[in-house]
Amino acid sequence: MTVSIAHLGPSGTYAEAAALAYATWLTQMGQDPLLCPYPSIAQSLRATAQGQAHLAVVPVENSIEGSVAMTLDTLWQLDTLQIQQALVLPIAHALLSRAESLAGIRTVYSHPQALAQCQGWLEQFLPSVQLIPCNSTTEALQHLDENRDTGAIASVRAAQLYQMPVLAHPINDYPDNCTRFWVLGLQPSSGGTHTSLAFSVPANVPGALVKPLQAFASRGINLSRIESRPSKRSLGDYLFFIDIEADASKMSVQSAIDELTACTEKLKIFGTYNILPFQSTSQTIS
Amino acid sequence: MTVSIAHLGPSGTYAEAAALAYATWLTQMGQDPLLCPYPSIAQSLRATAQGQAHLAVVPVENSIEGSVAMTLDTLWQLDTLQIQQALVLPIAHALLSRAESLAGIRTVYSHPQALAQCQGWLEQFLPSVQLIPCNSTTEALQHLDENRDTGAIASVRAAQLYQMPVLAHPINDYPDNCTRFWVLGLQPSSGGTHTSLAFSVPANVPGALVKPLQAFASRGINLSRIESRPSKRSLGDYLFFIDIEADASKMSVQSAIDELTACTEKLKIFGTYNILPFQSTSQTIS
Repeated sequence: MTVSIAHLGPSGTYAEAAALAYATWLTQMGQDPLLCPYPSIAQSLRATAQGQAHLAVVPVENSIEGSVAMTLDTLWQLDTLQIQQALVLPIAHALLSRAESLAGIRTVYSHPQALAQCQGWLEQFLPSVQLIPCNSTTEALQHLDENRDTGAIASVRAAQLYQMPVLAHPINDYPDNCTRFWVLGLQPSSGGTHTSLAFSVPANVPGALVKPLQAFASRGINLSRIESRPSKRSLGDYLFFIDIEADASKMSVQSAIDELTACTEKLKIFGTYNILPFQSTSQTIS
Repeated sequence: MTVSIAHLGPSGTYAEAAALAYATWLTQMGQDPLLCPYPSIAQSLRATAQGQAHLAVVPVENSIEGSVAMTLDTLWQLDTLQIQQALVLPIAHALLSRAESLAGIRTVYSHPQALAQCQGWLEQFLPSVQLIPCNSTTEALQHLDENRDTGAIASVRAAQLYQMPVLAHPINDYPDNCTRFWVLGLQPSSGGTHTSLAFSVPANVPGALVKPLQAFASRGINLSRIESRPSKRSLGDYLFFIDIEADASKMSVQSAIDELTACTEKLKIFGTYNILPFQSTSQTIS
């Protein structure tokens, strides 16, 4: 059966590299994956919620730049998607350019997250260039044809795909740079080591966040992540996204969730899933 | 005495509007403020930490798009800056263009936060335009001269400053859109209603975040905000930024901070301050 996978495009993005890694795994499982690029993360999630694609592969957080707000905000709005799997992709940025050396570069284009992840390197080696944000690392490559004095930050894989010279690699400030992706679909999640959920709490109640956290701590359930997002109702009013290291079908988690239902305003469970060990393929970044 | 105020420039940004609002208040207090634009938030903070400016006015969080990562990450790196004051600026975005009507627009430029805050409006009224991110709302205006089929999202104040026609206003999706700014300097903070701090917790310890939160909850101290940021050491390792509704000199807060010191890895107190009621001036946005 063909399994269509929505992801942020166009070809050459890190989201596509993650979708490819997952597709390789699906192929090993005897399935027939098909990659479907979308112009934004929100559109790839909505297409999957509406049944236009079987799965969406979207970035959740980067180890340096933190959460991907568009993924969390869109998931909170949609009511149907469940996490099927997580995967962690190592991120290594390269400087692509037709310039002969770094000295010839005046302008560098990239996605704001990639620019931020290389800011130390840029300050050291290209202190006076102009930095221009783009919608994706692939879009940044479109500017390289105009002038030889422009550079783009993208993956080595994108350089190969679009036949662009690599001037420096890796240029990310932290060697352990990686991004966590979620694979989401309409199927109920199948269980695993991690469960993700989100909730809103009543505004202006002292200790309103402590109670939900205690529901897990008192049962010895480890929280691997907590992230706040604005509820968009008023300044100081938040949603909380939490990952716990346990299966939602476990008795202790069920009872923690019952306690949570009582002390939160709105609660959404995004499912229980495993983290797929990343397998480098010839098509993904080294 | 002249008080120099560093802020994200160039002229026409919302950060400048916040700096102007604070400058107006300083003038009323008999001081002589001087605005100093910098090309990034990080540079305005570093200049102030190095004594090149007396104060920095920087955005901390927006009610729709959430925290400003660059502000939090730079503050954690710097050890010297203390919050002197907070102020909340209402944000109303406008579409600026030389086009005769919306139908003539093909491309819209703006800062990614402004594009995100107007995405519903853009999907409804300009569903097929290309959205291009820029480093600031003011920078977006530079593209309007090239072609009549381009638009920029910025403030009405920027439209007046650069004499650009306003095609639609307000276009933000949520009417209660506002941004909180901090005024920071090398002086010790002077006390007030709110205290901000940040800490890291030992990795992979169940309930590691619950203990610090309980230190406040058990003393009836309200948390008005909690925000996690990656520690940049490894995925799943975080710093937490917390605002409490109390003065750090209060006995109960002192004892909570003592408890915090024991259960956190590294703790930084950014000071106690008041929130300045926003006063609209003729120079700031309506």
